[in-house]
Amino acid sequence: MNSAPLKNDLLLRALLREPTPRTPVWIMRQAGRYLPEYRETRARAGSFITLMSTPELACEVSLQPVNRFALDAAILFSDILTIPAAMGLGLHFVEGEGPSFERPVRDAAAVTKLGVPDPEQDLLYVLDAVRLIRSELAGRVPLIGFTGSPWTLACYMVEGGASKEFAHIKSMLYAEPARLHQLLALLARSIALYLNAQIAAGAQALMLFDTWGGVLTGSAYREFSLHYMSTIVGQLKRESEGRRVPVILFTKGGGAWLESMGQSGADALGIDWTQDLGEARRRVGGQVALQGNLDPAALHAPPARIREEVKKVLDSFGKGSGHVFNLGHGITPGVKLEHAAAMIAAVHELSPAYHR
Amino acid sequence: MNSAPLKNDLLLRALLREPTPRTPVWIMRQAGRYLPEYRETRARAGSFITLMSTPELACEVSLQPVNRFALDAAILFSDILTIPAAMGLGLHFVEGEGPSFERPVRDAAAVTKLGVPDPEQDLLYVLDAVRLIRSELAGRVPLIGFTGSPWTLACYMVEGGASKEFAHIKSMLYAEPARLHQLLALLARSIALYLNAQIAAGAQALMLFDTWGGVLTGSAYREFSLHYMSTIVGQLKRESEGRRVPVILFTKGGGAWLESMGQSGADALGIDWTQDLGEARRRVGGQVALQGNLDPAALHAPPARIREEVKKVLDSFGKGSGHVFNLGHGITPGVKLEHAAAMIAAVHELSPAYHR
Repeated sequence: MNSAPLKNDLLLRALLREPTPRTPVWIMRQAGRYLPEYRETRARAGSFITLMSTPELACEVSLQPVNRFALDAAILFSDILTIPAAMGLGLHFVEGEGPSFERPVRDAAAVTKLGVPDPEQDLLYVLDAVRLIRSELAGRVPLIGFTGSPWTLACYMVEGGASKEFAHIKSMLYAEPARLHQLLALLARSIALYLNAQIAAGAQALMLFDTWGGVLTGSAYREFSLHYMSTIVGQLKRESEGRRVPVILFTKGGGAWLESMGQSGADALGIDWTQDLGEARRRVGGQVALQGNLDPAALHAPPARIREEVKKVLDSFGKGSGHVFNLGHGITPGVKLEHAAAMIAAVHELSPAYHR
Repeated sequence: MNSAPLKNDLLLRALLREPTPRTPVWIMRQAGRYLPEYRETRARAGSFITLMSTPELACEVSLQPVNRFALDAAILFSDILTIPAAMGLGLHFVEGEGPSFERPVRDAAAVTKLGVPDPEQDLLYVLDAVRLIRSELAGRVPLIGFTGSPWTLACYMVEGGASKEFAHIKSMLYAEPARLHQLLALLARSIALYLNAQIAAGAQALMLFDTWGGVLTGSAYREFSLHYMSTIVGQLKRESEGRRVPVILFTKGGGAWLESMGQSGADALGIDWTQDLGEARRRVGGQVALQGNLDPAALHAPPARIREEVKKVLDSFGKGSGHVFNLGHGITPGVKLEHAAAMIAAVHELSPAYHR
């Protein structure tokens, strides 16, 4: 069933810097609260946990944006924290407050107790969702799998939830670095297994979300975040169904370290909206593709203004292949549907000129 | 009384890139909750608003860190939002949630209604505090005055308080840029008057805190934040008591734009901990001094480790003048006193080697 030929492979080609007739486009958090059909399914599910852990529901919402808009990729509907959830930390979501864990990892005993989840057993619901989405997509567009980075998972696990100052994990980093390395190594092993299982189940591209790498100093970023992401990338089976499975690495607020990120083995880097895409392209020496980077808030502007902002992003990257259009971070719940549509239409209409 | 000769002018000299025997050091939010004497005064005041708006109390807490530690500067105890408070927006502080305004500025009518505060009338309590602190300092160390940047004040005024996504002000930026420019121009005029009044009252250096500039794209940063900070810097009376009054500009998360910030007319740039100080120095071409940039979380490490991290920061800047040691952001409430002391002692002991 997974072997339906891929009709639109623009994303995969752009991520590998192969020529394409136009720039492909997808949206981080494209299956989300700005879509009325998502809110309907979410209400029916009763809870976010039920929604993400029921393969049929996860499949349904993964397909919603692709059915509504001319997007060039679907992304698995899931959460970046499925691995710590599978480790038994008690993931739950408080409305308006984001994810948190009932049992944070704060001492040596808690770190030592953690085991590596077996994806086909402990994360079966995710893999079943991947298989179902692939089947339902029937080759229309490729499916992106994902997870959080080791550092980002560790942030949530040690802090117990979202944080502003990251006092607990940074105390561990500065005062007990060996313990943190133990935790990160375990997470890297778990993530590599999990992403390889997503590939086996049908994911055609992968994205590592390093949401919190940007709170580190440069040297700590390389030691505690980038190192483990590179390790994971090196362990992935990058070939599936006769094609390379490209990997996108995204460190929000990581603009200072693009050169190092470009050496990680990833095929593409996600770029947040604070960076200039053309400058980023020069800094990585054209060795990786770039994904991004419209300011998500630009979608509050009128459609004509959105079109101008899309053009600025395309201009900034410039001519040639290796650009995947996206926002610089996830789409926000308040965005109007016709504004998202205006962005996508502008990419379709304006981008061919950059590929001639 | 203000004319007591300045006994320690290391800060002023370093900010002007003049030679000093060692690197001066102060701490952002050095008068704050990590100090037991601050918590005592704060409790006596009853509320944060009373504390900051009573000159005697503001003076008392401004001097506490200077009395306890070998710091090379005092900074006025105040808030970055005194100007919008003086404009009548109803500033208040909810414990644990930060500042907010009762009457946010959301439409044309609200923008048009705003007036420029007269510092010696509407912000007299701040200027009285400056005069009192100068008198009490009696020339021990220089006094730094400050305010928030126009963009940062506008963020709080339009959002009504702290924000994660800045949806209201960014909607204004993308959909009604002329209205936002009207607001920012008014704030720039108000800030220039206010800072000049702080200089007249005795401030010997000034800092502009652009807490939220880092949420913008590069072009929006230059248009909506940096432009107005440059305008202000150009309007300041930079000479007082026979000395130049140096200006420090700090955009948190502004690492991508240091070259432009270096052209703003400011004497020094604050650098957050995500940037490499040596690289920042190269990028600004030695045309401005740099202030920073130890990760505030490093103060959770044991004193011996703090000393190593201080050395890394000094190494990163390298030899020569033009560096003011500081954290890369404000000190956090949970820091132990002996850890702050260890940082300051390390700067005193290790930095002379960089000035030979």
